[in-house]
Amino acid sequence: MGNVIVGQSGGPTSVINASLAGVYKTAMDRGAGKVYGMLHGIKGLLEGRYVDLAHHIKDNLDLELLRRTPSSFLGSCRYKLPSHHDNAQIFEQIFAKLHELEIESFLYIGGNDSMDSVMKLSKYAEDTGSRIRFVGVPKTIDNDLAVTDHTPGFGSAAKYIGSLFKEIIRDGLVYGSGQITIVEIMGRNAGWLTAAASLAKTEDCEGPDMIFLPEVPFSTEHLYERINSLYRRNQKSVVIAVSEGIKFEDGGYVCEYQGSSAKGTDAFGHKSLGGTAAVLAGLVAEKFKNKVRPIELSVLQRAAAHMQSRTDNAEAFLAGGQAVRAAFSGMTGMTVVFDRISDDPYMIETALVEVEKIANVEKKVPEPWITEHGAYVAKELTDYIRPLIQGELSQIMVDGLPRHLLLKA
Amino acid sequence: MGNVIVGQSGGPTSVINASLAGVYKTAMDRGAGKVYGMLHGIKGLLEGRYVDLAHHIKDNLDLELLRRTPSSFLGSCRYKLPSHHDNAQIFEQIFAKLHELEIESFLYIGGNDSMDSVMKLSKYAEDTGSRIRFVGVPKTIDNDLAVTDHTPGFGSAAKYIGSLFKEIIRDGLVYGSGQITIVEIMGRNAGWLTAAASLAKTEDCEGPDMIFLPEVPFSTEHLYERINSLYRRNQKSVVIAVSEGIKFEDGGYVCEYQGSSAKGTDAFGHKSLGGTAAVLAGLVAEKFKNKVRPIELSVLQRAAAHMQSRTDNAEAFLAGGQAVRAAFSGMTGMTVVFDRISDDPYMIETALVEVEKIANVEKKVPEPWITEHGAYVAKELTDYIRPLIQGELSQIMVDGLPRHLLLKA
Repeated sequence: MGNVIVGQSGGPTSVINASLAGVYKTAMDRGAGKVYGMLHGIKGLLEGRYVDLAHHIKDNLDLELLRRTPSSFLGSCRYKLPSHHDNAQIFEQIFAKLHELEIESFLYIGGNDSMDSVMKLSKYAEDTGSRIRFVGVPKTIDNDLAVTDHTPGFGSAAKYIGSLFKEIIRDGLVYGSGQITIVEIMGRNAGWLTAAASLAKTEDCEGPDMIFLPEVPFSTEHLYERINSLYRRNQKSVVIAVSEGIKFEDGGYVCEYQGSSAKGTDAFGHKSLGGTAAVLAGLVAEKFKNKVRPIELSVLQRAAAHMQSRTDNAEAFLAGGQAVRAAFSGMTGMTVVFDRISDDPYMIETALVEVEKIANVEKKVPEPWITEHGAYVAKELTDYIRPLIQGELSQIMVDGLPRHLLLKA
Repeated sequence: MGNVIVGQSGGPTSVINASLAGVYKTAMDRGAGKVYGMLHGIKGLLEGRYVDLAHHIKDNLDLELLRRTPSSFLGSCRYKLPSHHDNAQIFEQIFAKLHELEIESFLYIGGNDSMDSVMKLSKYAEDTGSRIRFVGVPKTIDNDLAVTDHTPGFGSAAKYIGSLFKEIIRDGLVYGSGQITIVEIMGRNAGWLTAAASLAKTEDCEGPDMIFLPEVPFSTEHLYERINSLYRRNQKSVVIAVSEGIKFEDGGYVCEYQGSSAKGTDAFGHKSLGGTAAVLAGLVAEKFKNKVRPIELSVLQRAAAHMQSRTDNAEAFLAGGQAVRAAFSGMTGMTVVFDRISDDPYMIETALVEVEKIANVEKKVPEPWITEHGAYVAKELTDYIRPLIQGELSQIMVDGLPRHLLLKA
């Protein structure tokens, strides 16, 4: 089966290393020569930075630790490959390195930007007659990949958010004082993860009072009216979930409303957001003269390995394994996707699709799933998410804290 | 044994309900008549708001759920009793209510402010010849209570912070890009909880690079020097733990440095703080022109029941039980404390001390335990905390999320 190289790209998820474990174990079980890991994705590969994974994953305990380790074990990058017509040299460099390592299969774990790299590399291989196969393994907490029913990484982030909302909502009740809590959740253009706040609505919890997704315009007047209406019903604590990427009707980001310090853009031209909850908290506090708490869930959404969904972890592992099988069977320019066969009992199948169908495409929450004039989500959306958060993967605890697998220099 | 009433006061901890469970179970096992719960502490009692706990804790499963439920099950208050010389009427009201309910034992779960209430009530009882006994059950994530070796609630918050730092530090390594992360931890005047960030330094984690406690003045120049020194050693990610309450050498709070919008004070005259990480992130970003992430751990420090220390939960339960035993044996004006008998193996004993010794006193981190000119903590301090985070209490999961006990109206 020749040698394999695997990389991780884009933002981490709490199960991105389960996919790496799936790639490694499946490749070794199926007779791969060596399995290399590029450090910090393609960017590291270009700089000649890679490791032989067998030196870092020595036994099944290491493999189990890897599945439970947050952040990208191999490091990541946000590196956009040019078109090979614009800059053939970078492709020549990458392929020279791959040939030197006798790579036959190249696996790349990432989101829609990373799938762009898989697409470009496989096209270059095709154009130049290279036999190296390029297969993508999807990951993102944002769940915004097209074609696939859902994406590895989303289920664990959703479980974390559902659990935290239950805790935050309970905490809000403690003084019975009319406090407003505004919780900001990651999601630039797609509200899937913010919608996961609705999971908190259970027999023992009222759930959040409002959920604002970036797919529809946000109105402060509407927000104020709804808060007033809850106060009229004598509600003591109001908890609101907002996506970091919500925009006013005029198209301006809420997070840029105050301060408006020019924020940077990343290598893919995305504006870096943040501060939405703080801006709204300022507005609401001024309007209602009440205690308002902004909470940013921040990087823990993608790093909270301590609150993984077992379903998600297993699917992330499976996606890595299926990508290896596809490459070994000769496929290239493809990525693994999930088809949902059944909701109850929950069942999925994997499939391989052409990576062009996923690269650079963002899947947003469909409008019929956004309800109450943009202030809540449909039961269908919560029902879609709930199977993905089922089951726990207990951390391996050492001396009171979760143990992770460390990439030793 | 007559009737018992129990209340919760001040900020919650993730094990404050384990103490409530300890009070309830011990009181029932020892033959109490009824066990009442005041809603929102003394403030609720004054308004005649209380419940018969037997209607809410119906079996052992309810008791187990209660032990795992975050926030104060009975609700809380921040209500400062006046001196009974200044306002005897409030005391008359409280005692009239207690006599009406035929209360013989009054248990109050709270921090040093709440112990002030226990002290005043027990003195009033003494002065007026009432036989009602008043006993305190300590709780606080801040660990700032005098006399006791440590306080229930601290161990779980410390475990949460140690775990999150391991995850945040790993996340910081992902891009290898010289990023600085500043994590803000609760603690107005005492740095015990911020010091818990040092727990993250383990075989598989470097730990935070700096830890700043409120006990010593904070210098931005010193911070810049240390960041420069780490950059010179080619470190790619810098993670810094700061207490919300750190102050500059001139005594001004760091969080008030920018914006300086007049923040409120609570009923005990404490300034409400927050924004320290954001202020520092602004300063550091300006100085180093680098990506800086501020993270506020926020209410999850006191509400993350999903990451409890079993040791802490067991001790919180025990403290509730011992308070009941003390009251039933005739003690009043006392509170439960822990003596550490041995570090390794870790062992504690409980004792009862006069509540005056704890009320309104804040225990700070001793200066010898603050090292590196105020930028780290001594191994002795980490060793003191580590036994308190041992063991896990698994949540009772229903449909993918932790189940809590809800106080039904």
